[in-house]
Amino acid sequence: MRYSKLFGKTTKTISQDDKIASSKLLVQAGYIRESVAGRYFILPLAQAVQQRIMAVIKEEMDAAGAQEMISPILHPLDLWKETNRTNTAGFELMKVSDRRDAEFALGGTAEEMFVDVVRKFNLSYRDLPFHIYQFSPKFRDELRARGGLLRVREFIMKDSYSFDRDEEEFKKIYEQMGRVYANIFKRLGLETMKVESDNGYIGGDYCHEYVVDSSVGETRYLTTKNGSYAAHEEVAVAQKEVKNADEAPSDIRTVEAVRGTTMEDGVKFHKLPLWQQIKDVMYVDENGRFVLAIIRGDYDVNEIKLKHLLNVRELTSATDEDIRQKIGSEPGFISPVGIKDNLAKGVELIIVADDSLRTIANAYGGANKKNTDLHNINIDRDYKGDIEGDIAMARVGDKAVDSGEELIEKRGIEVGNIFQLGLHYTNLMKDATFMDDDGKPKPYYMGCYGIGVGRTMAAIVEAHHDDRGIMWPSAVTPFDVHLVALDLHNDDVKKQAEDIYSKLEAQDVKLKTLYDDRPEARAGEKFADADLIGIPHRVVISKRTGDKLEYKRRGEKDAQIITVDELLNIIANQS
Amino acid sequence: MRYSKLFGKTTKTISQDDKIASSKLLVQAGYIRESVAGRYFILPLAQAVQQRIMAVIKEEMDAAGAQEMISPILHPLDLWKETNRTNTAGFELMKVSDRRDAEFALGGTAEEMFVDVVRKFNLSYRDLPFHIYQFSPKFRDELRARGGLLRVREFIMKDSYSFDRDEEEFKKIYEQMGRVYANIFKRLGLETMKVESDNGYIGGDYCHEYVVDSSVGETRYLTTKNGSYAAHEEVAVAQKEVKNADEAPSDIRTVEAVRGTTMEDGVKFHKLPLWQQIKDVMYVDENGRFVLAIIRGDYDVNEIKLKHLLNVRELTSATDEDIRQKIGSEPGFISPVGIKDNLAKGVELIIVADDSLRTIANAYGGANKKNTDLHNINIDRDYKGDIEGDIAMARVGDKAVDSGEELIEKRGIEVGNIFQLGLHYTNLMKDATFMDDDGKPKPYYMGCYGIGVGRTMAAIVEAHHDDRGIMWPSAVTPFDVHLVALDLHNDDVKKQAEDIYSKLEAQDVKLKTLYDDRPEARAGEKFADADLIGIPHRVVISKRTGDKLEYKRRGEKDAQIITVDELLNIIANQS
Repeated sequence: MRYSKLFGKTTKTISQDDKIASSKLLVQAGYIRESVAGRYFILPLAQAVQQRIMAVIKEEMDAAGAQEMISPILHPLDLWKETNRTNTAGFELMKVSDRRDAEFALGGTAEEMFVDVVRKFNLSYRDLPFHIYQFSPKFRDELRARGGLLRVREFIMKDSYSFDRDEEEFKKIYEQMGRVYANIFKRLGLETMKVESDNGYIGGDYCHEYVVDSSVGETRYLTTKNGSYAAHEEVAVAQKEVKNADEAPSDIRTVEAVRGTTMEDGVKFHKLPLWQQIKDVMYVDENGRFVLAIIRGDYDVNEIKLKHLLNVRELTSATDEDIRQKIGSEPGFISPVGIKDNLAKGVELIIVADDSLRTIANAYGGANKKNTDLHNINIDRDYKGDIEGDIAMARVGDKAVDSGEELIEKRGIEVGNIFQLGLHYTNLMKDATFMDDDGKPKPYYMGCYGIGVGRTMAAIVEAHHDDRGIMWPSAVTPFDVHLVALDLHNDDVKKQAEDIYSKLEAQDVKLKTLYDDRPEARAGEKFADADLIGIPHRVVISKRTGDKLEYKRRGEKDAQIITVDELLNIIANQS
Repeated sequence: MRYSKLFGKTTKTISQDDKIASSKLLVQAGYIRESVAGRYFILPLAQAVQQRIMAVIKEEMDAAGAQEMISPILHPLDLWKETNRTNTAGFELMKVSDRRDAEFALGGTAEEMFVDVVRKFNLSYRDLPFHIYQFSPKFRDELRARGGLLRVREFIMKDSYSFDRDEEEFKKIYEQMGRVYANIFKRLGLETMKVESDNGYIGGDYCHEYVVDSSVGETRYLTTKNGSYAAHEEVAVAQKEVKNADEAPSDIRTVEAVRGTTMEDGVKFHKLPLWQQIKDVMYVDENGRFVLAIIRGDYDVNEIKLKHLLNVRELTSATDEDIRQKIGSEPGFISPVGIKDNLAKGVELIIVADDSLRTIANAYGGANKKNTDLHNINIDRDYKGDIEGDIAMARVGDKAVDSGEELIEKRGIEVGNIFQLGLHYTNLMKDATFMDDDGKPKPYYMGCYGIGVGRTMAAIVEAHHDDRGIMWPSAVTPFDVHLVALDLHNDDVKKQAEDIYSKLEAQDVKLKTLYDDRPEARAGEKFADADLIGIPHRVVISKRTGDKLEYKRRGEKDAQIITVDELLNIIANQS
């Protein structure tokens, strides 16, 4: 490709307040250009990179037995109604009607569509398992787009869906996809961490994200130094050290406590440790049921865990008025002890106790009455949770559940994810069944697996750049060689440059070459552009190189004068 | 690929009233499945075909110097407002808003987007010409979807846009793209005719369609037996034979004519030939201006030509009331002679005369008064057109303008088109200019070029099938070999089949093989499925084939018993 005719050249006029390297470099080097916020033109250079990324993904997916297909981008809204996702999807769904008033969702994820096409066929257990995928544009009505390709409103995603007979079969595919993903990202030059995460709007019970370490990433997770454990804050589990649980229970007693309503007010007033205080948080769920979450005072309630435990979609904070009038308690003085005795008529209250409450004895806290506290509250004797489990937010410094090693926080870019969906969709959607060998219809057991192609490209740039520009790994570079020709007014040099260009592009060599043939640009400009664009092998032809050429690998300091054959050898051995 | 695990198997339950072979066969053989009317799932078999089609297109486009990129699918509606296409686009545009009430069009064609990205760069004449393209989903809110993939509401299109300095440069690209398209379709196994057509909603002055002969196609065009001329009915031009033009003009005279209001009524009443009668058609354009189209009686008015000549977007028939009250004439008795004498105040009327009126003399027709006709009307002497030109619908049997050969009608499927856009978009859109060598900004001179990928697949099936099913050309077949294994309960046969399957798929051979490994399906079913699916090379393994195999090419009658090596030879030499 002659640089003079390349569409999408380097530019100097970019927003200087763009702090994200990938965003800045991809725009500056002529790979992408914004249409409107969150929607990008993928220019020829970036499209070449995207295609190489997609080719690697396709190779690995196909090798794993997955089959590529395409679903329509406009999803009949009726399908999303079947799974109650028209309003609950974690991203705002974009909707569109046609001139016959048929309603559609603009695909943001395609579980319903894939279940729908599968149920159109009368499949039996003999056809299982199978795994189908697509590369297709996805639409997310994000409130805030940011960071170039890191968070956009329109992007190409590889989304795939596995259909299995049961959980046991599914787990093999889930494990396999874990390996496939690790391999894909490794080939693309990315080191990823497999991070346990929340399934969010997708549904299902467990899932993992593939995260590339990056200080500009939006994903925060807890992990250990050796990486044996890694999980999103939302789902991370940590050991809860035993405090004074072996103390003998003292008699519960009521004390007057003219204090403020925060946890700190309690600590100050009673001069007792924070961990000995019971923290009480009152919520209302989407059905109007009250939920009292109680936990050891030094922990925070993790609402995601709480929702999962309760199997509810929404939790909002109860109002002070409701706490007084419907629960018969007092904000800042809530207590599980006897709280169900004063409920207004028809009010339902469910108490969820974090298992950290079993690590303490003789706790203190409110008494459901203003300026009144209790001392020596003990679980089982004085109160009980209707549900007991882990609803605690794991913290930096906590001990990992597996190794006991200290948890640290890391940031990164989520480039892929794998989800167990189980029977979530196939139970909600009619006739999403196969005929099992006992002659009975059974719902498919599903998984789904995504990779954002554009975000992966941005993550590669984040991981591979320096002050001067991008440094593409060979596997994804848009061109193999950047041929920089100087002194083009000199006919001999020009002939030599054109000659080498032909040789590199020749049928038997087939190196994709970007040939900077601009007669008017200065040497400094050409070198700066080459560094910015980031092609691994730079070759310079000038009046000083004679019948040889100057070769430098991107990122290395020193150039060497070699022959064309030597160049071909170097490239063949390096990439 | 093992057929047992292929997603998208053959099916017998399809709509029997589907008369279009490609639609029927692609559904029946498991290539596509309808989501809702006009929106299809492209199943793995069809996706493989689509990818091979796209690879051929990409190869040829890249070889021609075009550069692949991607534009967002959601187009800011403001861009379409710049070119006044929000309502005038020939397809109903689908629109969607995001949660910040930003309005978008769902891309149906992308001229505005490509001009928009180009104008974001400050390009100069040195960067020209360049040609950029994308493969991307397109949306058309068609009133009627029909014929499987022949007319759909969502499809993948290769659309490309060339940016040139001027018409002269552009014409080279237009010619080049003509050759590129012919070559693409030839490689895909399609014989195409390059047919002059109307530019419709795209804008610009001239364009051509690539049409595959097919009795189920929607495109009708006029051509000669040798194909030297081919044009859509809408734009076709034919020779207009001279009738009695050399007759001496007689005196014009008024006659009473108590007759009906049709052309036939005139012929019957006056007992004169149809061609000697003047046909008068009254329209109103979008600005309320009246247009009288006049033409030789044996021709019909071609409204597309009429619109182009007038440079108007819309023409509707004038009402009888308007003809009487505003024009002062009489329906069925309109005449160009003196028609402007009785116009109501403020009424504007423009007369467009077809050049066929110069092939006759002493014509007859109405007198702008009920039951009154004129005889011996002669152009120039008795009336004149404000505009004179070709507004006639060419007819089967007319003589071609080039060779004089007789025009015949053909039907076909439009698989691609190339458009001159000229300055249409770059004049309407602000700053769509490059810096020319005189230091002045000039608007880009543009062309655009489309290929519908799915429709091309359907056209290939229309051209390559028999009663039993599809017969893919090697260039686009989803698999190279269909390996049919019978007698799979027999361990030796099974081993032999698996063995050959491995050999065909091995690294050094790399033949994509569809392996019918179903133990339960009968031989007849497997053969029927193989014919239906249409892979070129069929190989059968059974207890009768021993260590050899039975080979048959799809479409041939006789099979032969050969060795694996012989098979590899045959395939290497044939495809």
